[in-house]
Amino acid sequence: MADDPAALIERALAGERRATAKLLSLVEQGGAPARDVVARLHRLTGSAWSVGITGAPGSGKSTLTDKLVGCMRAESLDVGVLAVDPTSPFSGGAILGDRVRMQEHATDPGVFIRSMATRGHLGGLALATPQAVRVLDAVGKDWIVVETVGVGQVEVEIAGQADTTVVVVNPRWGDAVQAAKAGLMEIADVFVVNKADRPGAAETVADLDGMLELAGEQQWRPPVMCTVATTGEGVSDLWDAIGRHRSFLESSELVTARRHARQASELRAIAAARLQERAAALTCGDRFDALVDDVVARRRDPYGAASVLLDGEP
Amino acid sequence: MADDPAALIERALAGERRATAKLLSLVEQGGAPARDVVARLHRLTGSAWSVGITGAPGSGKSTLTDKLVGCMRAESLDVGVLAVDPTSPFSGGAILGDRVRMQEHATDPGVFIRSMATRGHLGGLALATPQAVRVLDAVGKDWIVVETVGVGQVEVEIAGQADTTVVVVNPRWGDAVQAAKAGLMEIADVFVVNKADRPGAAETVADLDGMLELAGEQQWRPPVMCTVATTGEGVSDLWDAIGRHRSFLESSELVTARRHARQASELRAIAAARLQERAAALTCGDRFDALVDDVVARRRDPYGAASVLLDGEP
Repeated sequence: MADDPAALIERALAGERRATAKLLSLVEQGGAPARDVVARLHRLTGSAWSVGITGAPGSGKSTLTDKLVGCMRAESLDVGVLAVDPTSPFSGGAILGDRVRMQEHATDPGVFIRSMATRGHLGGLALATPQAVRVLDAVGKDWIVVETVGVGQVEVEIAGQADTTVVVVNPRWGDAVQAAKAGLMEIADVFVVNKADRPGAAETVADLDGMLELAGEQQWRPPVMCTVATTGEGVSDLWDAIGRHRSFLESSELVTARRHARQASELRAIAAARLQERAAALTCGDRFDALVDDVVARRRDPYGAASVLLDGEP
Repeated sequence: MADDPAALIERALAGERRATAKLLSLVEQGGAPARDVVARLHRLTGSAWSVGITGAPGSGKSTLTDKLVGCMRAESLDVGVLAVDPTSPFSGGAILGDRVRMQEHATDPGVFIRSMATRGHLGGLALATPQAVRVLDAVGKDWIVVETVGVGQVEVEIAGQADTTVVVVNPRWGDAVQAAKAGLMEIADVFVVNKADRPGAAETVADLDGMLELAGEQQWRPPVMCTVATTGEGVSDLWDAIGRHRSFLESSELVTARRHARQASELRAIAAARLQERAAALTCGDRFDALVDDVVARRRDPYGAASVLLDGEP
């Protein structure tokens, strides 16, 4: 079979983009094929560095990603881009409107761009995204940029899974406060005030600096960068800041602790999704109905019935 | 031990109110003692009829409950009242502010009033409330009124677990629409337009009637009653409507299907809570950390590690 995981992986490793796209579809769809792909790919991973980019819609994340990819390509680095949209039902081959802006890189064989959207399987995008990162890592991407559309709970969770998380805000009164409220202060390794040519940029930088002061002494103090993504201004400084964060993590061995924590969190999510699947399978069908009848007829109490359901006869 | 479940149940069945209160505390706190109490009490249940009363804060539910309890007491029926507040951390002995209005019945030995609030155990009030209903049923209450403070998801779920669910709205433009939005049309067996002496009552009744028309042919068509709880106007008609709903369910055997469905939903919730507890226990500790290390070091893939975690060595 041309589409079996082993063959697909071989073709993807040989540089065939369609095979990589198919592997991404498989891990996105979840289930046994996804697990099979991950089991085969996982040992090939570990050389890529992932950058999460998050911020409110309209803050200019896509343009920033585009320019950042340009910096990476200028150093001949192989790049993967995942545009993650938990609010959209469209995925895969479909190019998001925003992605049109990435067309500069669309024909560059050194850049692989992919949109991911909600497919509704258990765990959803928060579980599927790390698998997509694994695919891109395994097929040889040096850098993987994970861009989320907004700052909802799922998006913050996804962006926080990256090795370096970039939080984008705009020069607007309250934007810094909104960032804090959305839980972005906790996940940010680098702050970007994008559209910094607009009024209020200095105040927003000061607001962020102030909030970072309040956070107290930290091993890594997130820098606050200013960019104008549309013109490219400040983007190479941002790229440098991301590089400094990577060097810091790698030299301090913090990267190990961070990856351990991230892996623990993923393993918890997988275990929870697996148990939910089991609960769903157990709580329908004849055996379940018979237990419900037992409780209604008072032959069993509800907790006793739950024990029988989960563990068999007592 | 005076407080062991068997002794408490004996004393509660003999009419000792403090023992009933203690049993309610035990089931509310959850865990093994709650399961023990429920296992012992369940076979004694089945004779009470439960009435859920829900509606927006300020709609007059407490006063309505008070007057409805008066109707029940006029027929010498034994009554239990559970005032459920998922938004409050206070519970048990503490009488909620609203409950002061119930003081007419506070010294009546035929009425047992109890406030329940969130204790934070898994499944929360949605799981604890049916257990509290079981306690009151087992100790001989003929009618159990479950009043919720608002129309949040948990409250709608709790009110919908009753044998007869009463939804309270006020004469205000849009109240009927809000009720529909909150999912109250689905759970209502009886609608009450309370404060019906205020302008707009007829329109609200018409709105509700219109929405019930749209719902199409049903075996039971929820009546829309008008009350002025503060004066007691219309409350005996409401009490009659509740009685008609009970007679309808009992004569049509629908009560069996309804209790089966309710029991199925409770059993699903108990199973889900139990599996969540297991997931929490499994995803910490040395064994879990070792598996995470294995994944980070690429000795195992994440799905494989999850299988080992949940099912032991493959």
